Amino acid sequence: MKIKVSRKASFNAAHRLFRPDWSNEKNDAVFGKCNNPRYHGHNYDLTVSVTGEIDPETGFVMDLKVLKELIKEHVEEALDHKNLNVDVPEFKNLNPTAENIAVVIWDKLRPHIDKKKELEVVLYETPRNFVTYSG
Amino acid sequence: MKIKVSRKASFNAAHRLFRPDWSNEKNDAVFGKCNNPRYHGHNYDLTVSVTGEIDPETGFVMDLKVLKELIKEHVEEALDHKNLNVDVPEFKNLNPTAENIAVVIWDKLRPHIDKKKELEVVLYETPRNFVTYSG
Amino acid sequence: MKIKVSRKASFNAAHRLFRPDWSNEKNDAVFGKCNNPRYHGHNYDLTVSVTGEIDPETGFVMDLKVLKELIKEHVEEALDHKNLNVDVPEFKNLNPTAENIAVVIWDKLRPHIDKKKELEVVLYETPRNFVTYSG
Amino acid sequence: MKIKVSRKASFNAAHRLFRPDWSNEKNDAVFGKCNNPRYHGHNYDLTVSVTGEIDPETGFVMDLKVLKELIKEHVEEALDHKNLNVDVPEFKNLNPTAENIAVVIWDKLRPHIDKKKELEVVLYETPRNFVTYSG
Amino acid sequence: MKIKVSRKASFNAAHRLFRPDWSNEKNDAVFGKCNNPRYHGHNYDLTVSVTGEIDPETGFVMDLKVLKELIKEHVEEALDHKNLNVDVPEFKNLNPTAENIAVVIWDKLRPHIDKKKELEVVLYETPRNFVTYSG
Amino acid sequence: MKIKVSRKASFNAAHRLFRPDWSNEKNDAVFGKCNNPRYHGHNYDLTVSVTGEIDPETGFVMDLKVLKELIKEHVEEALDHKNLNVDVPEFKNLNPTAENIAVVIWDKLRPHIDKKKELEVVLYETPRNFVTYSG
Repeated sequence: MKIKVSRKASFNAAHRLFRPDWSNEKNDAVFGKCNNPRYHGHNYDLTVSVTGEIDPETGFVMDLKVLKELIKEHVEEALDHKNLNVDVPEFKNLNPTAENIAVVIWDKLRPHIDKKKELEVVLYETPRNFVTYSG
Repeated sequence: MKIKVSRKASFNAAHRLFRPDWSNEKNDAVFGKCNNPRYHGHNYDLTVSVTGEIDPETGFVMDLKVLKELIKEHVEEALDHKNLNVDVPEFKNLNPTAENIAVVIWDKLRPHIDKKKELEVVLYETPRNFVTYSG
Repeated sequence: MKIKVSRKASFNAAHRLFRPDWSNEKNDAVFGKCNNPRYHGHNYDLTVSVTGEIDPETGFVMDLKVLKELIKEHVEEALDHKNLNVDVPEFKNLNPTAENIAVVIWDKLRPHIDKKKELEVVLYETPRNFVTYSG
Repeated sequence: MKIKVSRKASFNAAHRLFRPDWSNEKNDAVFGKCNNPRYHGHNYDLTVSVTGEIDPETGFVMDLKVLKELIKEHVEEALDHKNLNVDVPEFKNLNPTAENIAVVIWDKLRPHIDKKKELEVVLYETPRNFVTYSG
Repeated sequence: MKIKVSRKASFNAAHRLFRPDWSNEKNDAVFGKCNNPRYHGHNYDLTVSVTGEIDPETGFVMDLKVLKELIKEHVEEALDHKNLNVDVPEFKNLNPTAENIAVVIWDKLRPHIDKKKELEVVLYETPRNFVTYSG
Repeated sequence: MKIKVSRKASFNAAHRLFRPDWSNEKNDAVFGKCNNPRYHGHNYDLTVSVTGEIDPETGFVMDLKVLKELIKEHVEEALDHKNLNVDVPEFKNLNPTAENIAVVIWDKLRPHIDKKKELEVVLYETPRNFVTYSG
């Protein structure tokens, strides 16, 4: 009798899609205007979900106030108002696509969530583009 | 070849998170401002989903007008404009967390949905906090 | 050359619509299920707008970080997770309709906003019902 | 290590729910006002999701610019500003319920998506009614 | 000390933009794909606002339950699940653009709203296109 | 008998709030994390509104297809996927606050809108922060 609890958050960041080992021409062909070398940016909307049994003591799968603080400490402080390519170590050698950002967020949160519970991350790069990752 | 059909609804209710068998101090420590003994409240947003085969006669998995009426009769009439702790029998001895409310709603609807079909309830307590339950 | 800057916030509260000087029958006739004596509740969504000239130094009409803090201090701390009828002095003798709540919020914020600037409050009681007040 | 990437789109169309082999009375009884013989219509909102491995070269499961173009070519050009019953061959003998429209969209897109990847379609007929189909 | 109270509603309808006194070529040139002679359709979202003084007895500018019923009786029953061009007398000789629909709705509601109060109609034809009319 | 017609659009951009004639300390004190010298970014949501009489020929105040194209040509092509501070000439010596961006957009569009009609720009920097400018 598992249930999924979810918390929404957001952060604003600059990024650029490109591979330093490709030519400008190839980067432009693959990443188009997302390859602007002076960066562009997004309001990223994030939903973090944790699935497990309801604790009969509290009626919670996990206290969402705790989840909110974990997101703040491990995701927002690392990514909010940052240049993902330059300021965030994980993207020094990793292209900050929505897919890769979702995986990085999942990896940052996983150690702080009870191992018996499942973790899912949904990341909106724009209101029309989003990705879902569950490990 | 299954398909999921979903209907959104909402209800407005007061509630308080606490356990009568705990001290005030412990209730405050665990439930914080949600333990206000004079209650607070929410606009709860609900999505009810039913998964099954498409009926080749009608093109429906289930007539959403019927699902809308089931939600109205079994959920909205029981919970809308109510004090969950005081007015709703299911919460006399059950803490009305979002998790427990979702389970109560699922239990209320399950007998009225074709047994061969799956039922899922998503309950938003606020636009940023929500839970998903499938039995 | 005026411009309006707006900041959204929210709070969750219980309330009941009724007049203590009316009979139960009259309260029921006028306020319907909103007169539940054990209260119901809402997620109130708030937009606060300030209109004035752009400061050529900063490019701001008003720093929205400051407006966010004013809303937190004067509105959220007073109303969030509260029973409006019982916990909030302004509603001891005032029916907490959306109209009256918007006026109370406007009155709370007005002293903290530069007098040369206009103030507007939009308050959503539900996603379908809202009020707008400009003093 | 699979991840789901999603793209939203929309189209506006007229339709009517009915079966030509049923009497008017039976069509009215089953489909109600959706059986208006002069049609009614909707803004359909669509989310198309593709699930697969991240390409380590690009950081993409699938380039969402390509998915956007596939939706435009195969769904929007076929359905937008159309009368589904009259203009769209797939519904000549198929009742255009949300369920059937979702299946038609999935069938139109499936041949253009890498076979190793999963495809899911979510179709909103109204903001409160939607269906989800994964083949 | 005026305040504006607003209520949201919606209706789903088919329509076609064209002038019968123009050639097909001119209709196509001006109205494009909106001139499909077999119709297309929309989920129209409506916000109706009434501005006036707060009644000190009730705390209401106008009871939103009453406004909800007026919208249901005079707008939804006239327009929901209809073909605007064919089923709705006001559009027999009037092109059902969003602008004209908003004016028709305003004219339908105005006689039922207290003359001392102002009336405003906002009509969304799609989530990206909308019109605002105040008489 | 004026009516306002509105069209929504969006663009994604990087920016940084700072004044080059101020010290780093003063920029940090006033603009906080928005002064990250390596930039951050936003999905900007834009609503452009034009107010005027309805043309009795077409039923339009202004063809929204034309307004959509004007926004695309004069706003999206200039600002989408750009670094506002570096790529956009108007912000070479102007701090790209939401207020200033709204004024720049208004100034870009005004010459292309019929002089007898009023123009309004609403710009969302985040879902919670937005500005409104009418010249």
